[in-house]
Amino acid sequence: MKAAHAVLEYLKGSGVKHIFGIPAGSVNAFFDVLYDMPEIDPVVTKHEGAASYMAAAYAKYTGRMSVSIGCSGPGGTNLVTGAANAMREHLPILFITGAVPVSTMGLNASQELNAAPIFHPVTKYSVIVTEAKNLLPEVAKACQIAVSGVPGPVHIAIPIDVQHAEIGSVDIPAPPVRKPMVPDLETIQKTARALLNKKDGCILAGQGVRDSVDSLIELAEMLNWPILTTPQAKGYIPENHPLLIGVFGFAGHEAASSLINDGAGQALLIVGSSLGETATNNYNQNLAEGRLTVQLDFDKSVFNRKYAIDIPVLGDIGLSLLMLIEELRVLGLSRGIIHLGSSENMYDEEEAVKDEEAEYNTKNVLLELQRLLPTSTRYTVDIGEFMSYVIHHMRVLDYDSYNINVHFGAMGVGIGSAIGSKLAEPDRPVVCITGDGCFFMHGMEILTAKEKGLPILFIIMNNARLGMVYHGHALQFKRTHPAFEQEAVNISEMAAAMGIPSFRVNGMDDLRSDIVDQLMNAGGPAILEVALKDNNNPPMGDRVKFLSSFGK
Amino acid sequence: MKAAHAVLEYLKGSGVKHIFGIPAGSVNAFFDVLYDMPEIDPVVTKHEGAASYMAAAYAKYTGRMSVSIGCSGPGGTNLVTGAANAMREHLPILFITGAVPVSTMGLNASQELNAAPIFHPVTKYSVIVTEAKNLLPEVAKACQIAVSGVPGPVHIAIPIDVQHAEIGSVDIPAPPVRKPMVPDLETIQKTARALLNKKDGCILAGQGVRDSVDSLIELAEMLNWPILTTPQAKGYIPENHPLLIGVFGFAGHEAASSLINDGAGQALLIVGSSLGETATNNYNQNLAEGRLTVQLDFDKSVFNRKYAIDIPVLGDIGLSLLMLIEELRVLGLSRGIIHLGSSENMYDEEEAVKDEEAEYNTKNVLLELQRLLPTSTRYTVDIGEFMSYVIHHMRVLDYDSYNINVHFGAMGVGIGSAIGSKLAEPDRPVVCITGDGCFFMHGMEILTAKEKGLPILFIIMNNARLGMVYHGHALQFKRTHPAFEQEAVNISEMAAAMGIPSFRVNGMDDLRSDIVDQLMNAGGPAILEVALKDNNNPPMGDRVKFLSSFGK
Repeated sequence: MKAAHAVLEYLKGSGVKHIFGIPAGSVNAFFDVLYDMPEIDPVVTKHEGAASYMAAAYAKYTGRMSVSIGCSGPGGTNLVTGAANAMREHLPILFITGAVPVSTMGLNASQELNAAPIFHPVTKYSVIVTEAKNLLPEVAKACQIAVSGVPGPVHIAIPIDVQHAEIGSVDIPAPPVRKPMVPDLETIQKTARALLNKKDGCILAGQGVRDSVDSLIELAEMLNWPILTTPQAKGYIPENHPLLIGVFGFAGHEAASSLINDGAGQALLIVGSSLGETATNNYNQNLAEGRLTVQLDFDKSVFNRKYAIDIPVLGDIGLSLLMLIEELRVLGLSRGIIHLGSSENMYDEEEAVKDEEAEYNTKNVLLELQRLLPTSTRYTVDIGEFMSYVIHHMRVLDYDSYNINVHFGAMGVGIGSAIGSKLAEPDRPVVCITGDGCFFMHGMEILTAKEKGLPILFIIMNNARLGMVYHGHALQFKRTHPAFEQEAVNISEMAAAMGIPSFRVNGMDDLRSDIVDQLMNAGGPAILEVALKDNNNPPMGDRVKFLSSFGK
Repeated sequence: MKAAHAVLEYLKGSGVKHIFGIPAGSVNAFFDVLYDMPEIDPVVTKHEGAASYMAAAYAKYTGRMSVSIGCSGPGGTNLVTGAANAMREHLPILFITGAVPVSTMGLNASQELNAAPIFHPVTKYSVIVTEAKNLLPEVAKACQIAVSGVPGPVHIAIPIDVQHAEIGSVDIPAPPVRKPMVPDLETIQKTARALLNKKDGCILAGQGVRDSVDSLIELAEMLNWPILTTPQAKGYIPENHPLLIGVFGFAGHEAASSLINDGAGQALLIVGSSLGETATNNYNQNLAEGRLTVQLDFDKSVFNRKYAIDIPVLGDIGLSLLMLIEELRVLGLSRGIIHLGSSENMYDEEEAVKDEEAEYNTKNVLLELQRLLPTSTRYTVDIGEFMSYVIHHMRVLDYDSYNINVHFGAMGVGIGSAIGSKLAEPDRPVVCITGDGCFFMHGMEILTAKEKGLPILFIIMNNARLGMVYHGHALQFKRTHPAFEQEAVNISEMAAAMGIPSFRVNGMDDLRSDIVDQLMNAGGPAILEVALKDNNNPPMGDRVKFLSSFGK
């Protein structure tokens, strides 16, 4: 068996169904094996960067490692953004890149690049394998690293000759398995006592709670403490839960900020948040001020960074929550009866959309579209001013319905995420909310969605400018460079030329259910272009405050 | 003065006219200064990768350092491919990336990334500057490194707070100047004697001769030795020069291969080639076999790698050639009278296009288009099967008329190169030859060309597949994976939707001068789509032989 074949057998055995990337001479051994291996479907993208975003969303929504591939040289470097994104999001992706034959290294072969050191800072493990006998063990080792501890991307560069080398018959290693990180029982007991000692407190839930939402809610109900989420965790807690206050941090809600800034609660229980810029309203010192701080996380590097943490609890968040609940129960706490209420309190600073007189603006468009779309829709949200409107205004109608990438913030990530998400959960409606800037960066992947027959609605907020840059800059400097604005392009006409059903919205009246239904049922991707230059300031004042605070 | 302002004053003083990239909060100090500095025009692209290709071509064709900018995080990583490309092409580019404020490093600020170590392997210098007082000196140092010795890219990451810091009044350093690398006179003298001692020889000219073509031709005429060029150096020697044999290496000419393989010439004089894979027909051992080898280069790392070099001559290639010519003159050699002849010998294995019966194929299309385009046209050639046809078949009608990127081979590089080339030499007609794969990766930059009003013709060879992958794979494995083919898209209809003049070619008869003229005179970019699935094997047999040689 060829070494590349053995790798693919291992990946197949590990449940890999798709490989995202672009073929090339330097990875052709893999693609030739795939010819005879229908279990693994290559998703050939237009740009490797987008492939890596697809792989990220696919890993996130299947809960399994995913695979992305690129050629030696530019294919590899084009994947670096995706590796950095996956590193930040703790998503296990195996990046495979081709490399020139071992015998020609350092001799300027076509597309030669030593990719391992480039990937090193943005992966958990990055090596080049120069002997065929080591390839399968190295791949298995890398995959194990990818899924273990704090999951994340890994990278293996594989020279052409190593891919093709005959390695005889080999035992295919077992799939990678993540060993649970069990928190220390004494720490849990200490935490339970400490929490009980406090009269009141509040809970800040980050995206680390994604797989443990029920436990988090149970804990909150036992303590009867209000819950804030980070922007990235928007949508994990049902918005009609009476303990939910709203989003704290970037584009968050006034009620959440008030609660933190007014010093409410004697304790702060942080669950699955690294307490980064967007989660903390720019490292707002009021967050921990005067509060006992308890932080549950599986990443020990997030403890005691910007905030002194009184009790760090290291372990898988789900396990920590379960054990903490059990311990509180032992100490006599029980879950009260909670009546789900209306969620209007979260949004009460806002006016509801009024059909007759609603202004044609980003907020009203997004709210109206959400009204027209299935409640189970997952929204993959790209990078742009619309992102802050989504976080601030859009409703949480179903669990895990937002894919938000405020962390690494790579333009176009929402487009790739939509495709990865749809492949991971084909039955769930997927709608991408993106902008013209992101579309012109990675929008050609909508053709990839078409080739794969994936029904995804791409809502493109087309304001013919880099809106987030424009508004951010205007707020900070009171002027903007003309280069932030571009010539307007009719994206729905482009879509038509691409053979993709589309509609161009020019006003609130164009937001019609028949049109949305038709696009959602087109049997493949569709584009709803929203032509709109919104001159309102987006709800992202804190980011601007952060940027403006330097050089004063 | 703000630190960012001082940097821009320095760049302005160094002759920088454009900055290629995408604005963002983390580089907004620069863009705000540009508001008041009309001498520097930001070229805002659709993807930072394309910005870096523009910067590369701009540096190449102005002979000066160029500048590319991206935000912290994804903007930085999106530039890595361009850095690697520039490194391989020895092009001086200053890459500026934003970074999170020094005080928030390691705290997961939005788009945080430590970019310096990522750029390190693909630049000559890559640092982060964490104190404002060091910024200007570091930038000046980096620029000096970029242009010195073997030129290449450099990278500076600049935290937001450092950009905005007030540094008072500062002296702006002098522009970077490259110190000539003067070759050792004794080595030159020894080389001259050694060459004279040989009855005959041949010259292999790489892209390092680009600025010294006249000297190279003079030397060849004095020695009366035939000249081969590498693929990358196609077009530097007038094709009707009687000493020119043709291209040796990837997609090269039979006459050149025969000359090398038949052992002609007692000496091989290599000028400005690193003797990489594409320049040597896969490290063909016949190249140096039985020949005295002399290599002129400014990069000492290229000596004695795959081939033992009898006399390496380290120094600027132009200087080495001038001194060598002078030395040969002292030794009694003079330049003969050379009569420029017909160039048909280079192409005599080929049939000429016959109007009446010409097959609609890539070769005939390219030759016919060249006939219809101005002779001074510069062709920026992208990555795909068409590239091998360009190298093998297209005529050399004017100096330096090909921009070929066989080295790093990044898809889409031809599109960015066209824009950079046009900005560098506005009066020269520029035609990009690209494919559908490259178009879907970076073709949205044609909108950037539109915004800048750049008249560039983009010829898009649209075969609805990754043709080079397809043919390469088919030749090697006798089968291809269905994923190499994509659904056909009508790119000229897309162009129309984008407001870009276009025409779709479906047969030889559609190649009409009125159409080409109209597109060339559209006052901005235009697209000529060639819809053609060419099932002939492209002239790239050696690359396949190279790939096939592993795992046998």
